Amino acid sequence: MKAKLTIFKIGGHVLEDEKALYRFLKAFGARPELKILVHGGGKKASQLARQLNITPQMINGRRVTDAKMLEVAMMVYAGLYNKKITAILQSLGLDAIGLSGADANTVLARKRPVGEVDFGFVGDVTRVNKDRLERFLEAGLVPVFCALSHDGQGQLLNTNADTIATEIARALSAVFSTELIFCFEKSGVLRNHADESTLIERLSENTFLQLKQQGIFNNGMLPKLDNAFAALRSGVESVRITHFSQLEKGTQITLD
Amino acid sequence: MKAKLTIFKIGGHVLEDEKALYRFLKAFGARPELKILVHGGGKKASQLARQLNITPQMINGRRVTDAKMLEVAMMVYAGLYNKKITAILQSLGLDAIGLSGADANTVLARKRPVGEVDFGFVGDVTRVNKDRLERFLEAGLVPVFCALSHDGQGQLLNTNADTIATEIARALSAVFSTELIFCFEKSGVLRNHADESTLIERLSENTFLQLKQQGIFNNGMLPKLDNAFAALRSGVESVRITHFSQLEKGTQITLD
Repeated sequence: MKAKLTIFKIGGHVLEDEKALYRFLKAFGARPELKILVHGGGKKASQLARQLNITPQMINGRRVTDAKMLEVAMMVYAGLYNKKITAILQSLGLDAIGLSGADANTVLARKRPVGEVDFGFVGDVTRVNKDRLERFLEAGLVPVFCALSHDGQGQLLNTNADTIATEIARALSAVFSTELIFCFEKSGVLRNHADESTLIERLSENTFLQLKQQGIFNNGMLPKLDNAFAALRSGVESVRITHFSQLEKGTQITLD
Repeated sequence: MKAKLTIFKIGGHVLEDEKALYRFLKAFGARPELKILVHGGGKKASQLARQLNITPQMINGRRVTDAKMLEVAMMVYAGLYNKKITAILQSLGLDAIGLSGADANTVLARKRPVGEVDFGFVGDVTRVNKDRLERFLEAGLVPVFCALSHDGQGQLLNTNADTIATEIARALSAVFSTELIFCFEKSGVLRNHADESTLIERLSENTFLQLKQQGIFNNGMLPKLDNAFAALRSGVESVRITHFSQLEKGTQITLD
């Protein structure tokens, strides 16, 4: 029987609220199974960029990453947040290890080809180093990933944290019984973005496609759901989207 | 027979010169023995602090680290430089892994007690996780350390990179035949700080103490030399101080 592994993804809202972050990390740490944490940090990166007079560009909800913005992402994701989280987890008795995709060659990507939009130093994941992550988990380590991959040629690349979490979950499904939990500031997938009482407790792919046609999902939710279904189709056993303070609730995503 | 391990420390000058850094990393990568790299980055941290209107304070050549300055150090050391170096080493075929002392609990420290000077979030190393580093080296990884330790209670601490390199070398001397090489922008220890032709090729502790009394060492060199002799007394087999482009030359430090 495969051992259970859960991959949690957290984003900006919980990262910027010290108390909420600590509470989340305690709940994360209390889970008995093997665990990996993936975090974003785009809001803080945008804030630091503004302080440094760099204007962050967004196209369709995705950041355009020029050389200066990549440095900001490296500083905020791999420096500030990744080490803060790692130090807190260590204090909670978890042997956390903070990683970018370059560290131990864990997440390889290729720079997104320039099409209608040039996203700059943005990477599409090509390979997750499953064996190395398996060794780390076996050794009792708790990997904490920031949203950076690398191309193997010396270039770090900005990669959406939802996507990194998804690709890690997909790759490790070969070895573990894998659950993927996207944690954010809403209680889950909502029929009405502005109304928490419209939580969808179970979202199948058919319903998703219908609701998508009705245009109810925003630019933050759509890639999360695309990632969720891709994960399920690649052998991830469970995908949930939930509030960072309610890890056992939210929306269960299902293929049928 | 113990396997050979070399710990290299590099500082600000080589980090800020892209070509010199690449050349150094190539020479580092070409060494056949087991290797660990430790890097600083204080100059860039001071520069970023100024851009963010934080005034860096220095007392006796050592940085005072308040909460904001610690965040800057985390961003520059663990984010910008640590990931840049790791990605370049990966492109050179080395399986580098960037680490702060919090990662895998590798370097523990305690906050320096407030005496005449309050250095703020500065840590004095109490323990290097020798076993974990040994496992990483056995697994083919090349650890790349930035100048951050942690206290095990959730607090990251700023620790001089020379000191981190020294403490790692001391701890691993129990297991490996260890060499410590401090690389910087001078050709080695100089009798006259301003004259490269006054290189001391071999510096014994007696000569050091005599020259120290004459006041020829500046505030950057003194702690390096104190670290060097401490390392030799703890079983490190060889300590050298040299230019980052001349890894085989410089000043050999010896106990007698």
